[in-house]
Amino acid sequence: MKTSRREMAAMMAMGGVGVALSSAKAATPSAGAKLVHHVFFWLKNSGSPSDRDQLIAGLRTLKDIPAIRNLQIGVPANTEKREVVDASYDVSELMYFDNAMDQKTYQDHPIHQAFVKSCEHLWRKVVVYDMEVLAP
Amino acid sequence: MKTSRREMAAMMAMGGVGVALSSAKAATPSAGAKLVHHVFFWLKNSGSPSDRDQLIAGLRTLKDIPAIRNLQIGVPANTEKREVVDASYDVSELMYFDNAMDQKTYQDHPIHQAFVKSCEHLWRKVVVYDMEVLAP
Repeated sequence: MKTSRREMAAMMAMGGVGVALSSAKAATPSAGAKLVHHVFFWLKNSGSPSDRDQLIAGLRTLKDIPAIRNLQIGVPANTEKREVVDASYDVSELMYFDNAMDQKTYQDHPIHQAFVKSCEHLWRKVVVYDMEVLAP
Repeated sequence: MKTSRREMAAMMAMGGVGVALSSAKAATPSAGAKLVHHVFFWLKNSGSPSDRDQLIAGLRTLKDIPAIRNLQIGVPANTEKREVVDASYDVSELMYFDNAMDQKTYQDHPIHQAFVKSCEHLWRKVVVYDMEVLAP
């Protein structure tokens, strides 16, 4: 009952897109997770290993937030340097949520708020991309 | 034999980071995939449904490239408008690869080259983030 109410509300919030997206379930890494939340952090002390590790430790606390279907933490990969590749960030987090409502629940969760409070002095810039996964 | 040679080469390319990362397997959406390749496209005709659909159709052809462990195509999600959220892009692709070598193989693959050739007239800007997934 709770799930179907949430799903219905999410579909309404997405203006009907949710219906078409429901067939995408099988193709997403976390079944049913249709919302990708990808955050990039640039440290004030860019390249500082200790500040980077402190931020990574903070991000790891987020895994206890129930709304998160999948959490990955990363750093710039050792791929080819090309003009279009932005490898200037220090740390990145990639999360999956079932829908936009769950992402909002995460945003307001005490563990997330505590993370921001304890780590925001570390970064100078944050860029967030929220992506609605389409049917394959 | 082929896999272990590839993995060894990838570890060398990553300067030893590969060893620490091998324990991350269980937590990644695609087992063993440690490289996230996330690309954002801004259309010349921003917001054009037909250009967007043409680009999405082009991106869907990429799924036949063997090196890709997981491919998701998306559009900006209907999350809260905040200063840090960049929802200005039109289309996004999110891929998982086992390692940086596989990402390079994908980059040079004829299907990817054909996609670029047939769709590059559609976009005015591309931003790529390559992320090395850390152990959880």
